[in-house]
Amino acid sequence: MIGIAMTNANPLVAPTFSKHGMLGTNPIAVAVPAGEEPSFVADFATSPVSRGKVDVYESEGKDTPDGLLQDRQGNPVTDSSILRDGGALRTLGGDVLHGGHKGFCLTAIVDIFSAVFSGANFGPTVVPTLGYVQDKAGAEDRGIGHFFGAMRIDAFQTADEFKAGMDEWIRTFRQAEPVAGKERVVIPGDPERESEAINMKEGIALSKKSLEGLEKIADLFEIPFGEL
Amino acid sequence: MIGIAMTNANPLVAPTFSKHGMLGTNPIAVAVPAGEEPSFVADFATSPVSRGKVDVYESEGKDTPDGLLQDRQGNPVTDSSILRDGGALRTLGGDVLHGGHKGFCLTAIVDIFSAVFSGANFGPTVVPTLGYVQDKAGAEDRGIGHFFGAMRIDAFQTADEFKAGMDEWIRTFRQAEPVAGKERVVIPGDPERESEAINMKEGIALSKKSLEGLEKIADLFEIPFGEL
Repeated sequence: MIGIAMTNANPLVAPTFSKHGMLGTNPIAVAVPAGEEPSFVADFATSPVSRGKVDVYESEGKDTPDGLLQDRQGNPVTDSSILRDGGALRTLGGDVLHGGHKGFCLTAIVDIFSAVFSGANFGPTVVPTLGYVQDKAGAEDRGIGHFFGAMRIDAFQTADEFKAGMDEWIRTFRQAEPVAGKERVVIPGDPERESEAINMKEGIALSKKSLEGLEKIADLFEIPFGEL
Repeated sequence: MIGIAMTNANPLVAPTFSKHGMLGTNPIAVAVPAGEEPSFVADFATSPVSRGKVDVYESEGKDTPDGLLQDRQGNPVTDSSILRDGGALRTLGGDVLHGGHKGFCLTAIVDIFSAVFSGANFGPTVVPTLGYVQDKAGAEDRGIGHFFGAMRIDAFQTADEFKAGMDEWIRTFRQAEPVAGKERVVIPGDPERESEAINMKEGIALSKKSLEGLEKIADLFEIPFGEL
């Protein structure tokens, strides 16, 4: 079986030419099994960066790369705190010359599949779960929506044939010739598998800021916070 | 019913960190019916620009916007003729800082759904139909593949309820406040509907270069080419 999952989210992404965030970072995950190789697993926010990534830039006192954020007037900015001040993320691709309208299409498809299908709150009618996101619609809270899909491989060909095809696909792309300065080309799922192996062995690295946040919460609830 | 269509294509798009084009511009089309409003129709190449758009830049003697093309070594270029010289398109998003790896995921999903499912030639094994694209694999030609999907709306809710939801979705996004200098926010399908109305009335505008090309073909086959 091939698995597909999507969700909509807090309205933080501005459609092409829109002043305000109206869509979530709306991730898509697609998992495709292979035979001898590990599965193809693509799992990505459809915005150019996830909100969490902007949070990390902010907590590290760094600017966000150009073209990814806009202020409350829709002007491009790199200030990583702008989401707290009425700003928005741009769609994947950025401006129209660079395909940002395609990113809008993609994020919109996830919104419709996740929320209109299920009768949940869509786009800007999502009641924010983040304190700093303005409630844009004052709509009834039916929650955000998710879309889950599964496709039977053997409706097309035998699972064995398909998995052998995926093995070939994965090997072909992993063997791609990399550009100068890069060691190799990875397939979707490779970086996460490698991180998992490292984290299982060495533990999960936390930023100083995250650690302080957890200590603060532990303190608040009078839970002893172990030595790390 | 909701309709989904995808196809793979000539290997012109370089995966993240790959020197060479290995994927097609792999378009996705998703059509969702509404009630009183026209349908939501997203139909887009998953690369930041379509190959045809680069052809237009080239025929007009214009550079392609930065970040969309790379030369045969994988260096960023704006030369619109680079695809004829071993160059490649980048994925939607561009470099990794701007989410290009998400574009790679998306274009890869279209390749797998279109070609691995159907047993067609995938990625770089597609036998090129464009004279200037190098045959990268010397593979058996099983053709490119397509993926067509249809989802029944009434498996989730009644079609009437869903269509009313889509009407609300479409109106909400069309009423978005535009950034300065832009008249309005459009939904996927709006620009094409407007072009269709104009073209049906005024005819289809052709570039001088396209017109000359058609005249040349007409001449070759001794077919009279009408006054335009």
